[in-house]
Amino acid sequence: MSRTVDFILELDKLKSVTRKNRSKGSDRYENSAEHSWHIAMMAYSLQPYATTVLDMHRVVGMLLVHDVGEIDTGDTIVYATEGWEERKAAELEAVRRIFGMVQEPQRSFFLALWLEFEEAVTPEARFAHAADRAIPALLNLANEGQSWRENGISYQRVIGRIGPPIEAGCPALWEYLRGRLAEENEKGWFGEDR
Amino acid sequence: MSRTVDFILELDKLKSVTRKNRSKGSDRYENSAEHSWHIAMMAYSLQPYATTVLDMHRVVGMLLVHDVGEIDTGDTIVYATEGWEERKAAELEAVRRIFGMVQEPQRSFFLALWLEFEEAVTPEARFAHAADRAIPALLNLANEGQSWRENGISYQRVIGRIGPPIEAGCPALWEYLRGRLAEENEKGWFGEDR
Repeated sequence: MSRTVDFILELDKLKSVTRKNRSKGSDRYENSAEHSWHIAMMAYSLQPYATTVLDMHRVVGMLLVHDVGEIDTGDTIVYATEGWEERKAAELEAVRRIFGMVQEPQRSFFLALWLEFEEAVTPEARFAHAADRAIPALLNLANEGQSWRENGISYQRVIGRIGPPIEAGCPALWEYLRGRLAEENEKGWFGEDR
Repeated sequence: MSRTVDFILELDKLKSVTRKNRSKGSDRYENSAEHSWHIAMMAYSLQPYATTVLDMHRVVGMLLVHDVGEIDTGDTIVYATEGWEERKAAELEAVRRIFGMVQEPQRSFFLALWLEFEEAVTPEARFAHAADRAIPALLNLANEGQSWRENGISYQRVIGRIGPPIEAGCPALWEYLRGRLAEENEKGWFGEDR
């Protein structure tokens, strides 16, 4: 039990990993722990829009574990253009260390969820990715494009980067978002490419 | 879809509901959204210690939704001695409003999870309660009794309030915690009853 407790307290550190989005109407940048909760709830909420029957337990499990590696690596904005592969290798090393703190079978259970999410092949993983890619856009649409403007992310880059994974995982969500993003582009809520 | 998005953005407010515990080694009080993530991960981690076969999807779902009513009511320390029933009635009203924002069948799905947790009768709900009651103690043991000292909570009140639900839901966890709490009591990491 004391090893399990050490693992649980290690997870607590994800509450200190800061993301690029602010919580709606707040000055505080959100952290990866509350983000993980939010997209798990989002996935449940979007389930009626899934195009196939999904094992929601795996969807939710993937979303709860997908950012745990950031305890060691920190968060990187999805629009980063360099170092993505090195970053993914570092995250894998991180989750091997962190999940390695807990005993089997939980270690393999967590790692399998993390890998399924990263591989993004199963319908469950693609649905989970759609939620993860869409939530910053939803928060930005509610915050006048905050993280796009702060980080110099253009409309074209947003569309090109988040469109394909959201459409692949939850087409109805992309249909909705595409329209909203086009409207907001006219309001100037995007950055200039740097 | 736009109603679903409104609901998802309403949930964002749980990130601004402050609890009494600080994140380990941090000056910041944790919020109910990151707490909900943490105990869902805790439940997965503790699964090998369950005394019966559990539907972990329900356990995790209950833990993800159990604090959503605090968006309207705020957090109340578990050691509050008055107004508990009024508070629970207010939380029920709150979750009816909040879950009412999303369409069926998700509305009933979320409300059923919330009610199952509150009723604390099923093995899944009791296991979920054990995690929810134990995490403040684990954080306090890592933070020299921070929330107990700040709120004047004595050793006897901790034992009496969290012991029975933790023992009912996960006896091995209580066995461990009881020993840790007795050790820490000798270090003076508790408050004086007010």
